[in-house]
Amino acid sequence: MIRIALDVMGGDNAPDANLGGALDALSRSEDIFVQLVGQKNVIDAWLRDKTYDDKRLQVIDAPEVIETGEHPVTAIQKKKNSSMVIGLKMLHDGESDAFVSAGSTGALLVGGQTIAGRLPGIKRAPLAVQLPTTKGKSLLVDCGANVDARPEMLVQFAIMGSLYARHLMGIENPTVGLVNIGTEEEKGNELTRAAYPLLKDCDKIRFIGNAEARDIPQGTADVLVCEAFTGNVILKMYEGVARTLLSQVKSSLMQSLRGKIGGLLIKPSLKGLVSTFSSKEDGGAPLLGLRGLVIKAHGNSTEVQMRNALLECEKFYNSGLKERIQDAFT
Amino acid sequence: MIRIALDVMGGDNAPDANLGGALDALSRSEDIFVQLVGQKNVIDAWLRDKTYDDKRLQVIDAPEVIETGEHPVTAIQKKKNSSMVIGLKMLHDGESDAFVSAGSTGALLVGGQTIAGRLPGIKRAPLAVQLPTTKGKSLLVDCGANVDARPEMLVQFAIMGSLYARHLMGIENPTVGLVNIGTEEEKGNELTRAAYPLLKDCDKIRFIGNAEARDIPQGTADVLVCEAFTGNVILKMYEGVARTLLSQVKSSLMQSLRGKIGGLLIKPSLKGLVSTFSSKEDGGAPLLGLRGLVIKAHGNSTEVQMRNALLECEKFYNSGLKERIQDAFT
Repeated sequence: MIRIALDVMGGDNAPDANLGGALDALSRSEDIFVQLVGQKNVIDAWLRDKTYDDKRLQVIDAPEVIETGEHPVTAIQKKKNSSMVIGLKMLHDGESDAFVSAGSTGALLVGGQTIAGRLPGIKRAPLAVQLPTTKGKSLLVDCGANVDARPEMLVQFAIMGSLYARHLMGIENPTVGLVNIGTEEEKGNELTRAAYPLLKDCDKIRFIGNAEARDIPQGTADVLVCEAFTGNVILKMYEGVARTLLSQVKSSLMQSLRGKIGGLLIKPSLKGLVSTFSSKEDGGAPLLGLRGLVIKAHGNSTEVQMRNALLECEKFYNSGLKERIQDAFT
Repeated sequence: MIRIALDVMGGDNAPDANLGGALDALSRSEDIFVQLVGQKNVIDAWLRDKTYDDKRLQVIDAPEVIETGEHPVTAIQKKKNSSMVIGLKMLHDGESDAFVSAGSTGALLVGGQTIAGRLPGIKRAPLAVQLPTTKGKSLLVDCGANVDARPEMLVQFAIMGSLYARHLMGIENPTVGLVNIGTEEEKGNELTRAAYPLLKDCDKIRFIGNAEARDIPQGTADVLVCEAFTGNVILKMYEGVARTLLSQVKSSLMQSLRGKIGGLLIKPSLKGLVSTFSSKEDGGAPLLGLRGLVIKAHGNSTEVQMRNALLECEKFYNSGLKERIQDAFT
């Protein structure tokens, strides 16, 4: 049984989507125990008329709420009784096996590192997100909020990302690319030029050189390494361009009768594509290199996404990724 | 009559696409005089059986060729008789009004600044590229190869980009957004946090705050300011995602008879969309803030793109953008 602490108050659709997702997850897996961390009165009121397996559900009171727009470091330091701080502390104290939050990425990154703590030797815990490609998926590390990484951190991201790709994405010997603005070794900015030789010399990864942003959707490398500002831009461009383009396809079809009829006919084909390139079903992304499993769910997570984030904890936990990362750095 | 020096040897499809584009441009505009800069024997042989207005065409011999993969600075310094160096020198000496090249962006940036020279007060000449959006176009500055900009450079990019948007894109009072990974002022990396207050205080622009990558395809700001590594990633993600997605739409339609019939019906609607989101027709992008007009054409420019790059020189030249930038910085 995996004990998962859920940040009930975090995210744009909290607490409804979070609580709904939790009950859904409970009904779908026998192997999870969910700890609902949040304002007890709110949670109790919400649960009153619901049916669920109450032997696998626990409510933990966290009276304070971190608001969007609050400075992450300040929020984590000041609001000791917020759902995020209490949940991360439960993880640290061994009372939980995983913590899931759709709250502020910045706060979760700071809290994850300071409260749950990093594994020995890890300099920074990156957020690792799977991107859809024409070949399957690529893992982008780091997409977090902790920017201006140093070259040696990128090497750690590459090692942790390769372990993730091997043990969770089923890629035997994953390739690693350094996100850059050209393919030649000397291309890029100060960071990428310094990181390139370090990645080349690292015998724990299969480094294949620079990866240009243009080739990312084609699956140019299994693991894409970059600092978080770049990773965030990549992730959001991907989302933004895909969303805009697919909605443009739709609206351009509506402009003529011919297009409308054609549109009806292609609807089933298009639907599969939209689901591949949208994040409607995605659960969350882990912070790599922490002492406990911390999963960041989308800020605007729906009930389905919250459910999936909870269910994914099982997969992450059982893969032994944490232990494998620990081994790689000792 | 505008005298345009064309780098005949630069680009993946040189010299054919370059020379073909030049003759096509000559036949379409009476107001351009084209100076073909490149290996004279190659050009003469190519021109032998062609018809064109020879009063508006001149061949300038440049026996050396800069190869892809050569280090830009070294190439520019060593190959004094390359088409790029000779073309830029003609611009500097007042023998040409514009220089167009599909050669190495890095070499063109270095050569543009050292040979053609920057306008007084300009710290760096950025590459400004128009991106398609659902509202029309946004201008992305800088997408060049000159990375690790300083905060005060971003302010200059914003001023020059605003003048470009006003006088070439017809946007009366263009909005300026700082590309960032969050909307709040304190978000981002060291560079964006330092640039934000400078942009806010600048009375020559209409700054509207941070622009998230996700919102770029929706036209979140008329002018998007960033340093070149980020700009390059944005540009290439845009290209890569759009290209992949549209080809996926096509191939997903081919998987069923229903899809195939629907696909035929939607073809006309889709075609308009593809041309909006692809760069098949785009000519080139200018380097802003130089003493002469330097246009970077795509490295893989076709004949049509080379033609358009040449024809666009007229528009850029006549807009008086250079003089307006000069005025703004004196």
